[in-house]
Amino acid sequence: MKIILLSGDSGNRLWPLSNGARSKQFLKLLKSPDKSFESMLQRTCRQIKEAVKDADITVSVPRSQVPAVHNQLGESFPICDMICKKDTFEEICLAAVYLHDVRKISPQETVVFCPTDFFTENTYFHEIHTLAEKVQKNDGLLHILGVLPTYPSEKYSYILPKNKEKCSQISCYFEKPEEKQAFCLIGSGALWDSGVYAASLEYFLKKAHQAIAFEDYEEFYAKFQDLQPKSFENEIDSKESCFVVRYEGEWKKLGTWNTLTESMEDSSVGNVILDDTCGNVHIVNELDVPVLCMGLSDIVVSASAQGILVSDKKTSSYMAPYTERIHQRIMYAEKSWGSYRVLDVEEESMTIKVVLLPGHGMNYHSHERRDEVWNIIGGTGRIIVDGMEQPVKAGDVITMQAGCRHTILAETELHVIEVQLGREISADDKKKYHLESETFFT
Amino acid sequence: MKIILLSGDSGNRLWPLSNGARSKQFLKLLKSPDKSFESMLQRTCRQIKEAVKDADITVSVPRSQVPAVHNQLGESFPICDMICKKDTFEEICLAAVYLHDVRKISPQETVVFCPTDFFTENTYFHEIHTLAEKVQKNDGLLHILGVLPTYPSEKYSYILPKNKEKCSQISCYFEKPEEKQAFCLIGSGALWDSGVYAASLEYFLKKAHQAIAFEDYEEFYAKFQDLQPKSFENEIDSKESCFVVRYEGEWKKLGTWNTLTESMEDSSVGNVILDDTCGNVHIVNELDVPVLCMGLSDIVVSASAQGILVSDKKTSSYMAPYTERIHQRIMYAEKSWGSYRVLDVEEESMTIKVVLLPGHGMNYHSHERRDEVWNIIGGTGRIIVDGMEQPVKAGDVITMQAGCRHTILAETELHVIEVQLGREISADDKKKYHLESETFFT
Repeated sequence: MKIILLSGDSGNRLWPLSNGARSKQFLKLLKSPDKSFESMLQRTCRQIKEAVKDADITVSVPRSQVPAVHNQLGESFPICDMICKKDTFEEICLAAVYLHDVRKISPQETVVFCPTDFFTENTYFHEIHTLAEKVQKNDGLLHILGVLPTYPSEKYSYILPKNKEKCSQISCYFEKPEEKQAFCLIGSGALWDSGVYAASLEYFLKKAHQAIAFEDYEEFYAKFQDLQPKSFENEIDSKESCFVVRYEGEWKKLGTWNTLTESMEDSSVGNVILDDTCGNVHIVNELDVPVLCMGLSDIVVSASAQGILVSDKKTSSYMAPYTERIHQRIMYAEKSWGSYRVLDVEEESMTIKVVLLPGHGMNYHSHERRDEVWNIIGGTGRIIVDGMEQPVKAGDVITMQAGCRHTILAETELHVIEVQLGREISADDKKKYHLESETFFT
Repeated sequence: MKIILLSGDSGNRLWPLSNGARSKQFLKLLKSPDKSFESMLQRTCRQIKEAVKDADITVSVPRSQVPAVHNQLGESFPICDMICKKDTFEEICLAAVYLHDVRKISPQETVVFCPTDFFTENTYFHEIHTLAEKVQKNDGLLHILGVLPTYPSEKYSYILPKNKEKCSQISCYFEKPEEKQAFCLIGSGALWDSGVYAASLEYFLKKAHQAIAFEDYEEFYAKFQDLQPKSFENEIDSKESCFVVRYEGEWKKLGTWNTLTESMEDSSVGNVILDDTCGNVHIVNELDVPVLCMGLSDIVVSASAQGILVSDKKTSSYMAPYTERIHQRIMYAEKSWGSYRVLDVEEESMTIKVVLLPGHGMNYHSHERRDEVWNIIGGTGRIIVDGMEQPVKAGDVITMQAGCRHTILAETELHVIEVQLGREISADDKKKYHLESETFFT
């Protein structure tokens, strides 16, 4: 069973935790069965593996988030990376072409596209079997997993099935109707479009070729950046020839703080103090310093290195126009090789903390317009500076003038305070070199 | 006219802005007439100077806060420093003895003690003239400035005057009564005790000698730390022989976020975004990253390097039991010589940013249990390391092993990233030395 996890959405309505460097799918805020925290991606993947024993999972994700997938799921899943973020139509088409051209999947195979930004019960994923079975029966046509609505939301599209059977042809499709219309549709037996789409691979390939001129995966990948973003649901031209499979259990999209906090088991994560008078309050604090909350109701507080959100839960869904105004550098990022955190920014200097995981290192590189100082504060490793290799340990200080080539490799977890000095400090000011020493990274 | 500004209260109900290193009197949150921000201390001082042309002001303050007074008021006011914080009785007695023994003020002079943690109109301070005139007329006896109450607060003490004249003998004094009693007292014409006390210096000296055995200022100063804290109002034994001067204008004690925000002209200070649906919300953000507030009512948010408070305004008055639980290092402090900020803390390292103002430097010192690295990121200065003097500038890196003697002096404003490395990093691990170079700090 080919299942593609769609992780292309960044989720900017979960600021300040999600941002350009960290999508909502990767936030570890949900409690796993063993009571540790897991992300939406980890949860979806775990639930699918439990429900579908022969699941062959591919992860679709923007290229910048590939390290995050490796961090959270390991390196065993094939990844279809996108050069940038687009909408669901482009994401699904690229993944379909990837499956066919790169993974050599037969066009007759059934594939299931599954978003990762919702919260549901394990039984939901048992419906993947139903979807596959019905796709086989119905000539590989598109089958959408429909969810019994719980309220007349304007955020979902509605599918009116022809009958109340487990699997029904679609009578009519309503794209994100107004609340009043949604209310009537629910009365008429409509279901929410959950975004889970199943069909033969051929069906998706045909969609891609109809809309976009390309020969193969490589050409498609190269064109991806210039495609006009479209949502997949808008591109299904004759929805009446499609089917909907009905699911009647708990299901919730985790796009906003309002819905995400409903799915959090604990009311607070991190260093938080709540007084006795707080009610229906959720606090996520990623900072080292405490958050004290007193006398609050229906409030979400979220604090990270990027900023602080304090919002009425319902109102938090409408943050987009405000967060769009915030243009800031990434203050903290987790990477496959470790993490970095901006500690101090001045006009002509920037101080960051870099943590390198054992066995990981930087590219051999130089900067044209800045000097750098590495203050090693923990761990051991090796460096090469202008061709000279030497071991480093806590307490060592390495100064590098602009133009000097350098790299660092962690033997044990290596903690470095890096001081950058120069007039135009920019991530673009980086020139990479081939490392002559072939043994350095081995 | 001798006026003593009482700045002994730390104001721990204004966490996370006020703390052991920064008292509420020094928070710059009030708008001055020129639309810049001023602190309670600066505001009180400005208002007194405007109202009392011949005001001879002395500032009473804990020793640790003397640099803050110099920063905010300059160095022209005499300072009566306390070795530690006590209550108002000890503070007033020490200041009285200081005025007599150190400043050689005659016992017959009228002195006015004035707290600095309230918000009032300029006219309030015109009453200082009334107080002085009445003290002269009434044999140097104690005169309390009484304020017309606006609500039956349980936080104030109440003075029932014998009559409704501008200055009246006190009929009865009620120490912080319950709300119901306060309500009745207001009906009977009682006034709030504003904490402004005027009498002849002799009156206060007598109080001091009655309660505490001491010969002179030095002995009193030395004994101060061991005194049992008492509030001044409790130590006025025969209040019926005292007078109250009536004030009927606006007056508000700024002890809690609830009252402080009422006196803030702007609803936000710092990097703050409020949506249109916020009402009666005040945000003070001292961090570099934005605070986004949506859909809030009657809420105060305060963010500093020490932590984040999110509270219903009224509830915020009851924060003491919660902030007492927070035991944390000082993450940011402004000093007479500049400022420091903790950037990163690990078990065996600490990274701080130090800003030294021009002409300021550190003591010549060494540490037994830690190495240090100075990364100069801005400005110019001079250093001495183990007797060797040399100039430093942005880009220089100085490494110092444990035991090494060192000092740094700023010529222009000097910005330093200091990396400390060792197993037991502590502020106590500091050995000071006499500096042989007599010209270094000149």
